[in-house]
Amino acid sequence: MTDKHSEQRFSGSDIQDLQFEIQQFTAARDWKQFHDPKNLAMAIAVEVGELMEHFRWSSTDQSRGILQDPATREAVEHELADVMILLLEFATETGIDVPAAIRRKLAINEARYPVDKARGSALKYDRLV
Amino acid sequence: MTDKHSEQRFSGSDIQDLQFEIQQFTAARDWKQFHDPKNLAMAIAVEVGELMEHFRWSSTDQSRGILQDPATREAVEHELADVMILLLEFATETGIDVPAAIRRKLAINEARYPVDKARGSALKYDRLV
Amino acid sequence: MTDKHSEQRFSGSDIQDLQFEIQQFTAARDWKQFHDPKNLAMAIAVEVGELMEHFRWSSTDQSRGILQDPATREAVEHELADVMILLLEFATETGIDVPAAIRRKLAINEARYPVDKARGSALKYDRLV
Amino acid sequence: MTDKHSEQRFSGSDIQDLQFEIQQFTAARDWKQFHDPKNLAMAIAVEVGELMEHFRWSSTDQSRGILQDPATREAVEHELADVMILLLEFATETGIDVPAAIRRKLAINEARYPVDKARGSALKYDRLV
Repeated sequence: MTDKHSEQRFSGSDIQDLQFEIQQFTAARDWKQFHDPKNLAMAIAVEVGELMEHFRWSSTDQSRGILQDPATREAVEHELADVMILLLEFATETGIDVPAAIRRKLAINEARYPVDKARGSALKYDRLV
Repeated sequence: MTDKHSEQRFSGSDIQDLQFEIQQFTAARDWKQFHDPKNLAMAIAVEVGELMEHFRWSSTDQSRGILQDPATREAVEHELADVMILLLEFATETGIDVPAAIRRKLAINEARYPVDKARGSALKYDRLV
Repeated sequence: MTDKHSEQRFSGSDIQDLQFEIQQFTAARDWKQFHDPKNLAMAIAVEVGELMEHFRWSSTDQSRGILQDPATREAVEHELADVMILLLEFATETGIDVPAAIRRKLAINEARYPVDKARGSALKYDRLV
Repeated sequence: MTDKHSEQRFSGSDIQDLQFEIQQFTAARDWKQFHDPKNLAMAIAVEVGELMEHFRWSSTDQSRGILQDPATREAVEHELADVMILLLEFATETGIDVPAAIRRKLAINEARYPVDKARGSALKYDRLV
């Protein structure tokens, strides 16, 4: 076996295709043994820490401009990808259907945050009047 | 205007469709003003904290079994969805192409972790021999 | 044995006294078994998530004013205490001398961030010119 | 002005002394302007991410042994110090009395987790029977 391990790649923006590509990568390296939910949740948090590192000392307003620097933009893209890859591995390992989970949570949020009350407000739902 | 705000829903597992659905939800509530990269990165970290809460006192082995409890499983699904929704908002706000970013990062990881060296190892790439 | 478990309390601001008080609390509940470094690190991150929750949608400027609300101030105090208690447990379990570790790190930071170069700059040390 | 900026150092384990030493370091570099509560909370989370990085792929049992490696031990000590320094800065900026906050939270936890019910259990207080 050589380093030129052959893996199938898709194009497009289908989550299940991406999950399949990630699983090929992981399985080829025999990394499933490390990918229990606890480890993956912790690894996600580590990568989110690296994502935040780019923004910790900037004001909220400044943070919109930070990505205009190409090197920072590329670094942030890599961090975002790291978080997303681990999240999709978490979903694969636990059998969670990501699009269904997102749509269920959006429906819950629509009930918690009715447009009339939530418009323009950053209050948590249990404080909305 | 009523609470029965009408939004378009897709089905399937296309990331761009999900991003569109999330943006409808956010725009209808005029929440874009809060969604600069710094705030979103911090909000992602808050939700990852809630995801980790379910696993903090269990061993890594036990963590595989935790999701067999239906109430815990549902709670974890909601946390995963919260993280994913905010990540997709981050990507939308910053103009990052998620599938492209994931595939670019997988290609980097393939170079950093050649199958021959990385198989069965949890070492970081800069420690692989 | 009754709930009125008797524990020694100090006053003052000595870190070792606080560590002793926390250890009494933990030992009385037989919680040492859960307090390996991995679990404690994850628990710290969960509590930091709860600390951040108070600030996620506010601007950096607004965040200075948030603590003027007494209820928020009390909640933030509790979150800060939760993080600190777990950090001190981590130090106790691993045998790390907290004041010595802080002073060693301050010395490193003084070398990395000389006053002349670092004054007024939020740049990381490897970018300081 | 030279790099040999002179700062007062204490010894011992008094939290207020450590806060004073940290404030000297920060003030000399004119960093107070970056140290609003939001930025500090985010910076704490970044450093906790770096602390977790050492444990993410190890089992809970293995995590007890990781610190036997001197280089890892030193790295973990530095991460712990980074978190603690930022937490103490947060307390200084917000005027939170750390020992008082810890003792108040311990008293709350004693009420929430009576020894008889909590002994040997990792359940959250709202699930204790």
